[in-house]
Amino acid sequence: MPTSMHITESSYGKTGVRLVKVERNKTRHEMKDMTVAIQLSGDFEQAYSDGDNRQLLPTDTMKNTVYVLARQSPIGEIEGFATRLTSHFLERHPQIVRVRVNISEKIWLGIGRNGSPKDSFQMVGPECRTVSVDSTRSAVSVEAGIANLVVLKTGRSAFADFLKDEYTTLKETHDRLLSSSVNAQWIYGVLGHDAKTPWRAVRQTLLDIFAQHNSLSVQHTLYAMGQGVLDRFSCIDKISLSMSNRHCIPIDLTPFKLDNPNEVFVPVDEPSGLIEAVLKRAA
Amino acid sequence: MPTSMHITESSYGKTGVRLVKVERNKTRHEMKDMTVAIQLSGDFEQAYSDGDNRQLLPTDTMKNTVYVLARQSPIGEIEGFATRLTSHFLERHPQIVRVRVNISEKIWLGIGRNGSPKDSFQMVGPECRTVSVDSTRSAVSVEAGIANLVVLKTGRSAFADFLKDEYTTLKETHDRLLSSSVNAQWIYGVLGHDAKTPWRAVRQTLLDIFAQHNSLSVQHTLYAMGQGVLDRFSCIDKISLSMSNRHCIPIDLTPFKLDNPNEVFVPVDEPSGLIEAVLKRAA
Amino acid sequence: MPTSMHITESSYGKTGVRLVKVERNKTRHEMKDMTVAIQLSGDFEQAYSDGDNRQLLPTDTMKNTVYVLARQSPIGEIEGFATRLTSHFLERHPQIVRVRVNISEKIWLGIGRNGSPKDSFQMVGPECRTVSVDSTRSAVSVEAGIANLVVLKTGRSAFADFLKDEYTTLKETHDRLLSSSVNAQWIYGVLGHDAKTPWRAVRQTLLDIFAQHNSLSVQHTLYAMGQGVLDRFSCIDKISLSMSNRHCIPIDLTPFKLDNPNEVFVPVDEPSGLIEAVLKRAA
Amino acid sequence: MPTSMHITESSYGKTGVRLVKVERNKTRHEMKDMTVAIQLSGDFEQAYSDGDNRQLLPTDTMKNTVYVLARQSPIGEIEGFATRLTSHFLERHPQIVRVRVNISEKIWLGIGRNGSPKDSFQMVGPECRTVSVDSTRSAVSVEAGIANLVVLKTGRSAFADFLKDEYTTLKETHDRLLSSSVNAQWIYGVLGHDAKTPWRAVRQTLLDIFAQHNSLSVQHTLYAMGQGVLDRFSCIDKISLSMSNRHCIPIDLTPFKLDNPNEVFVPVDEPSGLIEAVLKRAA
Repeated sequence: MPTSMHITESSYGKTGVRLVKVERNKTRHEMKDMTVAIQLSGDFEQAYSDGDNRQLLPTDTMKNTVYVLARQSPIGEIEGFATRLTSHFLERHPQIVRVRVNISEKIWLGIGRNGSPKDSFQMVGPECRTVSVDSTRSAVSVEAGIANLVVLKTGRSAFADFLKDEYTTLKETHDRLLSSSVNAQWIYGVLGHDAKTPWRAVRQTLLDIFAQHNSLSVQHTLYAMGQGVLDRFSCIDKISLSMSNRHCIPIDLTPFKLDNPNEVFVPVDEPSGLIEAVLKRAA
Repeated sequence: MPTSMHITESSYGKTGVRLVKVERNKTRHEMKDMTVAIQLSGDFEQAYSDGDNRQLLPTDTMKNTVYVLARQSPIGEIEGFATRLTSHFLERHPQIVRVRVNISEKIWLGIGRNGSPKDSFQMVGPECRTVSVDSTRSAVSVEAGIANLVVLKTGRSAFADFLKDEYTTLKETHDRLLSSSVNAQWIYGVLGHDAKTPWRAVRQTLLDIFAQHNSLSVQHTLYAMGQGVLDRFSCIDKISLSMSNRHCIPIDLTPFKLDNPNEVFVPVDEPSGLIEAVLKRAA
Repeated sequence: MPTSMHITESSYGKTGVRLVKVERNKTRHEMKDMTVAIQLSGDFEQAYSDGDNRQLLPTDTMKNTVYVLARQSPIGEIEGFATRLTSHFLERHPQIVRVRVNISEKIWLGIGRNGSPKDSFQMVGPECRTVSVDSTRSAVSVEAGIANLVVLKTGRSAFADFLKDEYTTLKETHDRLLSSSVNAQWIYGVLGHDAKTPWRAVRQTLLDIFAQHNSLSVQHTLYAMGQGVLDRFSCIDKISLSMSNRHCIPIDLTPFKLDNPNEVFVPVDEPSGLIEAVLKRAA
Repeated sequence: MPTSMHITESSYGKTGVRLVKVERNKTRHEMKDMTVAIQLSGDFEQAYSDGDNRQLLPTDTMKNTVYVLARQSPIGEIEGFATRLTSHFLERHPQIVRVRVNISEKIWLGIGRNGSPKDSFQMVGPECRTVSVDSTRSAVSVEAGIANLVVLKTGRSAFADFLKDEYTTLKETHDRLLSSSVNAQWIYGVLGHDAKTPWRAVRQTLLDIFAQHNSLSVQHTLYAMGQGVLDRFSCIDKISLSMSNRHCIPIDLTPFKLDNPNEVFVPVDEPSGLIEAVLKRAA
């Protein structure tokens, strides 16, 4: 006889739903390039335990729903599109109690000289704009974000006066390279009706603070970047930051009778540091 | 004046610490190929806010510590090695309150005919053995697991009688391909002192149930695989399973005046289904 | 006026054509999982220079042709399937003068205990079986192969007595790890009509020689592996081998007052060595 | 007795040599982020056949040589740095007859407002600048290039009037999306002494022509891009172009009683078209 057991949590959905939408007017085209993931939770126990699929909306239908909603109205910002998707499923299907939607949007810039039609684009990356929406019938959480913003400082970055134990061999430094892939998520408070989000300005603030900061550690710079966003955007009360420390190691050239005045480095992908924090405005 | 804010959660650490350890005896060699990630939480607020690093153990030291512990005693199973790592940091450094260690171990099989030295190996993959340890001074959680076990059924897999709404176009099928990358994590209860874990037997159970099951959905097969593990391993009370549904789409050959009696398929990476559940033995 | 210019070489085609074919009989299923690339060369100058597509078979048609040929007869070995594809295009379309087809086949092993239906599989990788066919109306070259066979020796591998110049710092060693991703391509001579190729035996020979060899360098082992194949397979006259040297670097533990008797290593992906040679049976 | 055989071609070297060089002056920093691969050919037969390494310069020494040359003088443009590397090996070691060096350079842009120090950068990608140098003692070939320039047109792209056979199902279209990852290599003729190469202008020309072209096929646009480069840069006599056709497929929304006036597309990574040609200025 099988062991008695129960499901303590579950979800199912579709990942990697790719979509490009083109919105054209006479003088220029706009395009959105998104990858959508949808995950549903709810009363699906019979599907798991007995193979009874009568409450199970196929993940293929989730994919179709993305396409239909994309056609029915302008995409606008991805925060809105993701929220429309979560609402759609909660409104139609009572057995669904929670919907999570993640969208990652690639960044394309217009190409073209004066006079040519505005219908050509170049992808810049690896950075993506992101959104994560987590909805139930009683609450909605929308986290805007940015992923894989790859930055590097060649000056004003130190790491010294740190704790040492018997396994510490790292040398103190007052001048190192600081290279990081930055991921950030934040929550907007009240925005004016139909107002555009300040996503681009938040992104620029993260870059500017990174560039201006006299860094004593990745932690220190991460904190300054979060502080900068909360200082400048009163509509944001909370920001999560995750920054890698992609080490650039100065090369020892003494075997070749050369010095290395902090000029030549080996960047290494592994291992790397990983620094994370959630910063919240004081009440 | 900067906005008043505080850190609500934070951690820092090292990811991608690669290590191969060889343990040799006269007639054969053993090797372990691991990638380790360590993440510390604790009283590090001053490092973030002021760049005061005096409580901050460098992530480089974490890397060195992995190397030292790997040298000091046999690795054994990765559950034990990961636990030794979390204990090490908690025991030495009072400001650390929580340590998480993740290890992913590649699978290598011995090559070689009768008579040759047992010192050559072939990597098989993409599957990895995994462990996640999350430790504080009062509690330790150890999750053993397997990642990227890629499997496929060419028979006895159906998906029918599912819910339809106006965006459903999927056809019911009683004979489809079912392809999945399986990820599983589970928690061992009391094992005998120095007993080896039944990791390999759990893995084989997952494979066997997948092969034997008359699948009515991925959910249904996932549940059966979890049930099978809880049935056979009384030392396991809880298992988390995450299975992709990597669609293999039958090709419509009617434009070419050919039928396709479920023989020729296009496997697609995106989009894919994702089915997850945590199964727990009833008390 | 535009500069006068001409096309000195060109080709076009389709890459990444994925296909799974299932061949069933009462007691067991067979499956093939292939990724096909097709590249055509010929008289297509007008398409390039003038946008005149009348001689241009769409790459979408190449994809359909893969599907149709896969349905029309058993796949058999990929050497034969690739050759049928090149012949198809050359026979139909006079403007095509050269067709190249590359196929990469994933390796799946049957899962299952005695008694269960033989319809479930596990993918093993990263290794793939490969074929490259290059056909014109007057000649056909078929190269069978294997890609990404990842192997490692923990004993009987040396690298010493090498050339030194003023930039050499590498230490000589008589006991190192040798880790490699092996790629090999070879050409079969006359095989009996309908005979199966010895692909699996060639693969095993490469593994066995790697395991048995007392390696003085990657070059030395590569040569021995090629020699072993030419020795054992009189139907093969030529083999190309490409082997990475994925360095495993012994960790210096002296800062921690520990020795490291060749036990603990850091494997690094970059940089790596790359050793290549083509070996041909003497006439 | 082993089969008699010989080596018909061979090479060995180092791939993935990563290097960041920072060149500082008072008001701004410059950085280069390169990945270098070096492959040597020459008289190394004894190393392969007998494990006699006396003529074999270690690949580790090649890596060190990259570091040393990077330190000894400004990097300048990668064409020059790659050429200095090939010369170095040919000048020192008579047994080396051919050296190939490939460099891929990541693109970093300065961040920062007026007034802040110019020492911070953001990586833009996936595009890279590339160079391939192939040198013997009697000849040097230098190919400059660009890799992974990802572009997309939402207008003025057609594909019609193409050849059809019985496996053709593709519909003709006069308005499709055209998305491509562009790779180009070209050879500079005589440049003034110490003149900078027009790399950035070539890149911009490729983008501009792509944007301006009324495309009748990828072949047609590729040809126009090559023509544009040869027209504008009399110092370039030959250019090789390789362009993928990353299909964006219009979604059929008729099952949902919606039209799709070329607005909503699924971009697919596999399969994709691949179009290649080498264009040469007429003598």
